Amino acid sequence: MPTPTIGVFDSGFGGLTVLRALIDRIPQAQFAFLGDTARLPYGSKSRRTIARYAAESARFLVNEQGAEFLLIACNTASALALDAIQDAVSVPVLGVIEPGAQAASAASQTKDVLVIATDATVQSHAYTAACRSQGLRALEKACPLLVPLVEEAWIDASTVIAASAAEAAPVPPRAAVTAEVIRIYLAELTSEAAARGFNPDVLVLGCTHYPLLRPLFEAAVPAGMRIIDSAQAAADAAVQSINGRLASAAAGSSARPTELRCFATDSVEKFERLGSRFLGQPVGKVQLVDLGG
Amino acid sequence: MPTPTIGVFDSGFGGLTVLRALIDRIPQAQFAFLGDTARLPYGSKSRRTIARYAAESARFLVNEQGAEFLLIACNTASALALDAIQDAVSVPVLGVIEPGAQAASAASQTKDVLVIATDATVQSHAYTAACRSQGLRALEKACPLLVPLVEEAWIDASTVIAASAAEAAPVPPRAAVTAEVIRIYLAELTSEAAARGFNPDVLVLGCTHYPLLRPLFEAAVPAGMRIIDSAQAAADAAVQSINGRLASAAAGSSARPTELRCFATDSVEKFERLGSRFLGQPVGKVQLVDLGG
Repeated sequence: MPTPTIGVFDSGFGGLTVLRALIDRIPQAQFAFLGDTARLPYGSKSRRTIARYAAESARFLVNEQGAEFLLIACNTASALALDAIQDAVSVPVLGVIEPGAQAASAASQTKDVLVIATDATVQSHAYTAACRSQGLRALEKACPLLVPLVEEAWIDASTVIAASAAEAAPVPPRAAVTAEVIRIYLAELTSEAAARGFNPDVLVLGCTHYPLLRPLFEAAVPAGMRIIDSAQAAADAAVQSINGRLASAAAGSSARPTELRCFATDSVEKFERLGSRFLGQPVGKVQLVDLGG
Repeated sequence: MPTPTIGVFDSGFGGLTVLRALIDRIPQAQFAFLGDTARLPYGSKSRRTIARYAAESARFLVNEQGAEFLLIACNTASALALDAIQDAVSVPVLGVIEPGAQAASAASQTKDVLVIATDATVQSHAYTAACRSQGLRALEKACPLLVPLVEEAWIDASTVIAASAAEAAPVPPRAAVTAEVIRIYLAELTSEAAARGFNPDVLVLGCTHYPLLRPLFEAAVPAGMRIIDSAQAAADAAVQSINGRLASAAAGSSARPTELRCFATDSVEKFERLGSRFLGQPVGKVQLVDLGG
């Protein structure tokens, strides 16, 4: 019995952090990843536009690539277009918001959580709604500079952490800028939380680019605050959803290597160049697809 | 005789700095501005995609809004799609690259110039070619973090300049981040210039977002280096191109108020909210148009 093809979709490269977490958990599966790079970023666009783009991308993965399960590895599309995607295709569809809220609930003692994400995700208040259904109060903040800082690789986590711990190692100026931007965003958010009577003990990284900044966040959050990575949470939830089918299919094929096909709607060269940083391994040859945008 | 309608096109809001410079010079004209905000940023996309988007936008301004002259107020589209736009419409089309190179030539004594712009503009080497035809050597650098920093308004030029001059006034942390990013980019660029034997005395701001950063650049460039703003240079060139026609049309109507119609392909609310910062006056009601993207 062949293993099912799992479709993973993002507006760009960030969703490769979710794919990476999935491959860690079920390396014997087949994956088809689509980055809608011609039309990124979704985070600054309207709900109507995002829904149209996301539905077209979902149909490509299901109808043309045979995906039998779809993971929306993009917080913005999960927040604004999950219904539109579920209407567009007939396979199970999972977003990253619900798993993130569930993981936050499991981690929080105070039941107050902070969420950082793109403009569009925050304006949708999808995390607030998902957290409320878990019995949590959520305070959200848009941090739109973090995606470009990650894409430009103004990060060097190990060095920054060393400097933060010992004040000795030189901090590369580019990484120091990113650390300062994170410090400013967190100061603004924790200050607002205090003013509104929140007592948060969890920070949700509500954008699939942010896992690459996790070491910087670990160094910047107040003592005792736990960090929830929606990429990890979504991968856990996806594995649970497809577990029965996959377990039986994989029973006789535990040594099967991961099969991965990557597609992009533009900038294939940039995808190949930057993607490995998000995936943690080479993305291989990326195929260009035209969704008519 | 009615004044001609001047069409001004950008992928987003940045081109409003060019429109502002045009309105300063010919306030009695009629303007139609289109920001292709559903598909921004162009700077990270391929030539093929940019050419298609820009041609569709140009046809809207000429065929549906009656523009009789088209100014491409976007360095990326000017660099990668000027030919495609000129093929798409039958009116005169002017980009921002040639005027920028001409102004740089007039300002430079050493005939070595630095150019900063988006990724796509730099990779096209359009400024290098335009500068070479003016007898200049150009060294280009992509500065992709500057557009998001401007759009997020992490700028407070007056305070930063005061602090730089006197080390006394407190620098707002957000503006200090932008000043530091500019310092890093300029240090990398001038270091490369020195290594390659350049002796530059002019810095070209090759992106229509950058005029809002001009005070920060003034504080950061080496002593004696002149700054050329391609928005101002393009507005000067546009006025020269349409001067005869406009002068006769405007002879009897010097008190006519500026007529301005603004269009965007998405995020009309964001355009209205942010646009005034670029235009220097309210943009008024922005109309949503669908170019099929």
